[in-house]
Parts: sequence; structure tokens; C-alpha cells
Amino acid sequence: MSQPNVQLLLTGDEIMNGDIVDSNSAMIAQQLMPLGINISKKTTVADDLAVLVAQIELLSAQADILIINGGLGPTVDDLTAQALAQACNVPLKQHEQAYQHIVDWCQKRNYSLSDASIKQALLPLGVEIIENSIGSAVGFYMRYQGCDIFCTPGVPKELALMLKKYIAPKLSQNSLVSTGFKVEKFQIFGIGESSVQQLITDNLADWPDDITLGFRSCAPMLEIKLTTFANVSALHLKQWQDKLLQLLGDHVLCQIVDEPPTMAEHVLTLLKANKKTIATAESCTGGLIASLLTDVSGASEAFEAGFVTYSNQMKHTLIDVPNDLLSLHGAVSEPVVKAMAQGAIKRLAADYAIAVSGIAGPNGGSIEKPVGTVWIAWGSLNNMQTTRFQINGDRHYFKLSVAHRALDLIRRCLINSKEIPMYKK
Amino acid sequence: MSQPNVQLLLTGDEIMNGDIVDSNSAMIAQQLMPLGINISKKTTVADDLAVLVAQIELLSAQADILIINGGLGPTVDDLTAQALAQACNVPLKQHEQAYQHIVDWCQKRNYSLSDASIKQALLPLGVEIIENSIGSAVGFYMRYQGCDIFCTPGVPKELALMLKKYIAPKLSQNSLVSTGFKVEKFQIFGIGESSVQQLITDNLADWPDDITLGFRSCAPMLEIKLTTFANVSALHLKQWQDKLLQLLGDHVLCQIVDEPPTMAEHVLTLLKANKKTIATAESCTGGLIASLLTDVSGASEAFEAGFVTYSNQMKHTLIDVPNDLLSLHGAVSEPVVKAMAQGAIKRLAADYAIAVSGIAGPNGGSIEKPVGTVWIAWGSLNNMQTTRFQINGDRHYFKLSVAHRALDLIRRCLINSKEIPMYKK
Repeated sequence: MSQPNVQLLLTGDEIMNGDIVDSNSAMIAQQLMPLGINISKKTTVADDLAVLVAQIELLSAQADILIINGGLGPTVDDLTAQALAQACNVPLKQHEQAYQHIVDWCQKRNYSLSDASIKQALLPLGVEIIENSIGSAVGFYMRYQGCDIFCTPGVPKELALMLKKYIAPKLSQNSLVSTGFKVEKFQIFGIGESSVQQLITDNLADWPDDITLGFRSCAPMLEIKLTTFANVSALHLKQWQDKLLQLLGDHVLCQIVDEPPTMAEHVLTLLKANKKTIATAESCTGGLIASLLTDVSGASEAFEAGFVTYSNQMKHTLIDVPNDLLSLHGAVSEPVVKAMAQGAIKRLAADYAIAVSGIAGPNGGSIEKPVGTVWIAWGSLNNMQTTRFQINGDRHYFKLSVAHRALDLIRRCLINSKEIPMYKK
Repeated sequence: MSQPNVQLLLTGDEIMNGDIVDSNSAMIAQQLMPLGINISKKTTVADDLAVLVAQIELLSAQADILIINGGLGPTVDDLTAQALAQACNVPLKQHEQAYQHIVDWCQKRNYSLSDASIKQALLPLGVEIIENSIGSAVGFYMRYQGCDIFCTPGVPKELALMLKKYIAPKLSQNSLVSTGFKVEKFQIFGIGESSVQQLITDNLADWPDDITLGFRSCAPMLEIKLTTFANVSALHLKQWQDKLLQLLGDHVLCQIVDEPPTMAEHVLTLLKANKKTIATAESCTGGLIASLLTDVSGASEAFEAGFVTYSNQMKHTLIDVPNDLLSLHGAVSEPVVKAMAQGAIKRLAADYAIAVSGIAGPNGGSIEKPVGTVWIAWGSLNNMQTTRFQINGDRHYFKLSVAHRALDLIRRCLINSKEIPMYKK
């Protein structure tokens, strides 16, 4: 079946002048991908009525499906309804369902019903309403010149809901849309795209043509995506998926169904399941590990406290790192990082600890310990492990990588993983 | 003078399928704005030769200036040079300057010179090279059908340099580009766009038409932008700028010349100038304040250590908050947050401290202390101040807002500000 021509028209002065970055079109592409729909072209223009009318006329003639995003709001800059009416040669008329939505929306919030609000109910004659359960502006749909036109709001959350509840279901009924794809997604950590590809070349050389591998970087995590046509057997996909997952071992964190969990969420889930607590003792990450843990609601069940010990003195005062270890080996060393983790466990009566000490740069490196050197300790008082990494990149990247590796190492410890992670090889 | 028609053509499968979000076009728009250049239209297509050729033919006929972004790399997906050659009816030829650049680039990195690398020197006959000091692919320029065509790389850092060093200077010589704008930018914290506009309406009602105010949200900071035509007198701009800055008072952090500093940088700069140190005692921000401070290189001069005391018990054990304060007032209270800051100062022998305790949500709120309640203490042992805020938003927003307000309050303390910030009113 041939692919339908699907186009996006994005409108907004704030996108054109660079005040905001457009993430909506990426969301639309991702949401439509499982239907087998690829976007052919995206066009972005400012809030200018003549330009919008001309683009709608042009694109609706080119495309089978046109998704217009933005310009549905109450202000004078919001011109989509007017432009669509003009392009399709129909009058603007107050739409009763849209009007009632606005009345209800304002009432719930104790807002007075302004003319600006009511303007959002003034829609091209003959449109079908796309409900908006969280915002004041409804979306709308009409068919013109054989093109299905969807008008959607610029607010990402509102757009996401309309895509899920109305547009994707409607498009899946479109005779031009193929039977679609099956997609399975997994969250991976600690192995890069090229390493995964090398592993497959080396171990699964007969990888079938009808299952496409895709990668999406959600730094420092990675998403791996297996895509196949809907008519390919589920068993076939499952068999190869299992082979791949086995190959990647504990680098696979989970299958992704909705929103992928963060690394800290994985760690906290394991800790809570075991009714254990964790302490942190951070030098080079400077509080980032604790902050990632406490980004998770309910973290307090497994995380009571953490130390940020940036100076040598404080490593001694707060978590009892012996001064002679510091002077003999330096702060960035195996004995010190181990003593930090042990000290934190004892001070906090925690079950586990993570400790990190490294050189984030750009200054402070030496030949023996260049910028990017880091020692990590993780485990319990009786089972404390350590390792050294060299992580090159800017300060932000360094901190984020160290924090995630430290969390991943304690995660592996909690699942009793016997594997050596790729990033330690 | 009439505006030139400036268009962008963005190419890349990863942008079309939503694997990455395009931030390059926003960067281009922002960089060209001071020249008085507005982008008329952005078109984004996948890496498809026929589509690219057709778009280049179409857009170069429409536009006076066409900036093509992406598709310059070494892989088979990188088709810009080939598409441009085909659209402009010129052959592809190895460009000596580009070839030499690649040879040098590989040599410096000890990379072998692959066919894929050399492909990047195969350019349409007659192009002018745009140098790339950090990447392997050069950019290139040619004029076709009266349209100035710039081909630029997808890597944001490389694009940024080319815009600054080559494209903006070249465009400013273009006879179609107006004499341009003067732009002054300032970094603001703790006051929103609508409040600024209300302040101006109330206090500077005669704000002149020839100075446009713009806002750019870099959450939780704000940038305010004064734009005027180049032929408007510098004194006129300066006078109104001064009036505005006076009105905004200590909400203004600095004038922005290059990259704006972070809030933590402002605080650390002030501390270092006074040879003072700061300690942190964090409950609801869970290490974020310490992490923001240690994002700044050289933070160790003013920041030795911080506590993340998430549980009541740890507030007592680690920073000596009296148990009776905790049981009498609860963790989220003025006496507790004050005791946390004082305890941290004493334990760390620091000059100043910040302490925060609040309810990040979504759970844990009560009628008296709903989700979003936070107490902040800041200052020195003898001059400790406290305040309570109600900050509504998700967990991430709450943590970021609390951390920034806490840092801003200590910043105001360090500059001896006598003002009450808007967010405290």
C-alpha cells in the first residue's frame, strides 16, 4: 500500500523568531509512527493571515492529511480558524459545542467569559470538534479537496491528548494509512548505538530484514526500538526481540510502555521492594545523585539523607575519611571513595551507599589523574565495590554520566547481576 | 527598506521522525534578528534526494536568502551537496580547500582518512567555503537565481560558529538587509513578563514606540530585550533602558553579552569576591541547590559541603535541629528551617547558609501546609532571615523554583539589597 502524503503546518511568531523551540512536531511524528505514517514535509510560518491562507491552500492540495498546529488561542495572533475558513471558502460561525466548552471551562475556573475567550468558538462552518479536556481551545477537523485537515493547539499537553484520543484513532481508519507497524521499545543504559550494532553484527548476523532497529538517545539513557510491519507474525518479532534482549543483558532496564522511568526510579523501586535504604556521599557530582533520587516522589521511603563533601576537610569531618588516606592517596582514589561510602553508611545507619570522587574539570587534572577521572564506590558495609572510570566531556556531561553510572552500579548490585557492564570493559 | 525573503530548509530523517527536536532553526532566527532579518518560512524534509532537489529549486526561486541546515556529514544520508549541485545544474567536484580541511582534521585526531570523510569535500562547482574550526564538514555558499544559498551543518556548535563568523557578517553586507537593529539584553529573575508589562504601564506610560520590548523565558530565569532601529539615537535607547532597569531594581542580574551566567554563578562570584563560604541544608530540594552550585567550575573556593537531610531524624542527627522543634512545628516550618541553616553553618564553619524545607508533592500536603508550601532560611549566623512561599507546579518545577529563590535571596543578601522582591510581595 502506498504511503499517504502527510504534512504539518506549524504556526507561531514565537517559533519563527526562535523564542521557543518547536517540540510539537517531534511529538506528532512519534505518535503517528506506530500507524506507519511518516511525515513528508513540515512547513513553519509566522502568525500572518495571508501567509497562512496561502499555505493551507497549497498544502491541502498537495497532502492527503494535513495537521495544523498552533494559532487556536484567544489572542489576535491566533488566526488558524480564520485562515482555514478563508482557504476553504466557508464562513466563520459560532460553534455551539465549542462555545459550551468555553463556558464550562471558564465556569470551572471562576473566570469571566471574555470576548477573547468566545472568539475560540468562532470556527469554519462544517468542522468536527476535537475535544480538549484540559485547555480552553478545542481542536477541529474538516475535509477539504480530499485532504483531511486537523487543527490542533500549540500547548504540548493538549496536543498530546488530541493525538492519542482523536487523531490517531481517526487516521487509523483512513483508507490511505497502511495497516501500520508493530513497535516494541526498551530502555537501555551503559551501551551506545554503535556498540549495540557491533554486538548484533558479531552475534546475530542473520538479523531479519523485516525487523528494523531504531535508536533514540535520551541522554544518558538510550531507547531501542524494534519495528516491523503489522502483518509480520508476532512470534517472529518476539523470537528476535528475545535474542536481542539476551545479548544486551542487564543493560536493558525495562520495556517502555508509556513514559520510561528514570534511573533513580529503577533504583528506588528495587530498594523499596527490599525495604532497604541508601545513603549518598558525593564529591564531584556535588549533590546531583541525591537530587536525582529526590526527583522521584516517595523517595523518602528509601533515602533519608546524603552528604555533599566537596573539600578534603569535610570528607574527614562529616563522613570520617581518615586524614592519612586523603594525604597518601588524594581525594580521587579508591581508598578514599570506599571510606566515603562506609562513613556515610555508618553515619546514617543506611543499608547501602554510593560514593563518588572525581575531577569534573576543566581545571584540577594531572598526568596521573586527568580531568574526567572518577572513582565510584557502591554497595553495603560488607560488600563494598569500587571502580575507576575516565569520562570525557564537559562538566555537565561528566556529572550526569558519573551519577547515572553510580546509580546503575547499585541497581546491578540490587538485582545480583553477575555481568560486567560494557562501560567497565 | 523592504524586508528580504529569508527561508530555512532543514533536512534530516531524525528531525522528521521526531527522534530529535530541532533547535537549530531557533538559533538561526535569534542570531539573525539583530540584523533586522526575520525568517519568512521554514521547511523541513527527510533525507531524500529528489525531495531535496525539488525544495532547493522551489525555495531558491522564492527566497532572497536560503539557509540550508543539515546533510553535510560523511554518511550516505547526507545529501545536501549532491542536491544543491543537481538543483543548480553544476557538477560535484572535489574542493581542494575542503579536502585539505578534512586531511588536517583527521590528522589532528589520529583518524585514518576514509572514503566517507573524503566525500565531505565533494562539493558543487563554484561554491565558497564556510570554515568549520571544530568539525570535519565545512559549510559552503553559492549564489543561484539571485538567491544567496548557505549550506550549514546540523551540529549546533558548528552551526553557531558559522552564523557568527561568516553568515551574519556576509548578510549584513547584503543590500536587501536593512540597516539592522540595536539590541540590549538583560537577565531578570523573580518577576514575570506580565508583571514587567504592568510595571511599565503603571510607571512608564510614555514608553516610546521605537523601542520594542521582548521577553525570552529561560526558566526559571527571564531575558528582557530592548530592540530599536539602528538609526535611533543611542542616547534615547540608553535613557529608556536606564528607566526600565531602575524600575526592575535587583530583579536585574546583569546585562547579557554572550552566554548569561547561571544564578549559582552570580552567588559564587559574590561569595568569592568577599572570600566567604556557603553551606547548604536541603530537605525538599534534595541536593539540587548543591548540584547547581557545583555545576560552576571553581565552586570549591566558596562551597565546601552540603547536607541533604530528607528525614526528620537526619535533620536532628546531622545538623542538630532540636527534636522538640520538629515535633512541635513539623519539618516544614520557620523554626526548623532556621535551625537547619544555623546547624549547617556551625557544623561546617561556613559564613553563610541556605536551608529549605517544603512539600514538593504530589503527596504529603495538608490543609495548613498544602503541596507547594516551602520555608527558606538564608543568611549568616547573626543575620538569618526566613520566608514562606507557596509554589504551585509539578515536582520538577517546584524544586527548581525553590532552589533559585533560595539562591536569589542569598544573592540579595550579599549585595545588601534593601528591596523586597516581587515574589515575596
